Amino acid sequence: MINEISNQDCRAVLTRSSIGRLGCALDNQPYVVPIYFAYEADYVYILSTFGQKIEWMRANPKVCIQVDEIANQSQWVSVIANGIFEELPEPQYSTERAHARSLLQKRHNWWLNALAERQTKLNDVLIEPLFFRIHTDSMSGLRATA
Amino acid sequence: MINEISNQDCRAVLTRSSIGRLGCALDNQPYVVPIYFAYEADYVYILSTFGQKIEWMRANPKVCIQVDEIANQSQWVSVIANGIFEELPEPQYSTERAHARSLLQKRHNWWLNALAERQTKLNDVLIEPLFFRIHTDSMSGLRATA
Repeated sequence: MINEISNQDCRAVLTRSSIGRLGCALDNQPYVVPIYFAYEADYVYILSTFGQKIEWMRANPKVCIQVDEIANQSQWVSVIANGIFEELPEPQYSTERAHARSLLQKRHNWWLNALAERQTKLNDVLIEPLFFRIHTDSMSGLRATA
Repeated sequence: MINEISNQDCRAVLTRSSIGRLGCALDNQPYVVPIYFAYEADYVYILSTFGQKIEWMRANPKVCIQVDEIANQSQWVSVIANGIFEELPEPQYSTERAHARSLLQKRHNWWLNALAERQTKLNDVLIEPLFFRIHTDSMSGLRATA
């Protein structure tokens, strides 16, 4: 049986999860990438590095976050949150940026450390960590039970 | 270290995977859902049921499939394939449809059986299995190694 879950249950899934997928779109071409995140209240805080997705979200801030917990084939839950991309540039957003870093540090400290300890490179381009957030404005979820 | 992987490596990841995420978009709003799939040559065959994604892909066939293998925090691979949605309606596509069913049956037999054995319902609406495929026209992938 597959059933819709409540908004409260959707929030609970986001709160306890830390890996999800971020969808963005440009000229109606979708683009999906795995992300590390931390959810609190109406924001999904994201730690990211390189890439196309930032350029795309700057051009079109409408995004989608998908998170699932797949226990087995007939027991899973999947949540989709729609929202708006917000960058957290210095110095205007230094408070929000510090908050994002603090939230993400609890879950993804290893990654921040890894970035600090060595130069993560992609094709010889230095990768810098980047913080942004998604203001969620709607959520829905499905749960399958045996 | 994060490195791009070859097209051949991207195909190998798709070939051995069976769960991924499908991104579609309408009016530049992205939408991401988990999917069961089987990849062969230049097609991703998908078994799906209800929903918004089918309506959206009929309106805009440009889609994206994202597949990852996350061994641990510093060892993962993620592949993104862009492609075009193709429905496989009866009777014109009965050969392709049978092929899709055969490929998916090898990996997802439990799900086809589950659909056959009982009426899977969402809000009292009967769910019917639906087959479609994505013709992939570009792929890229990243691999992180410790």
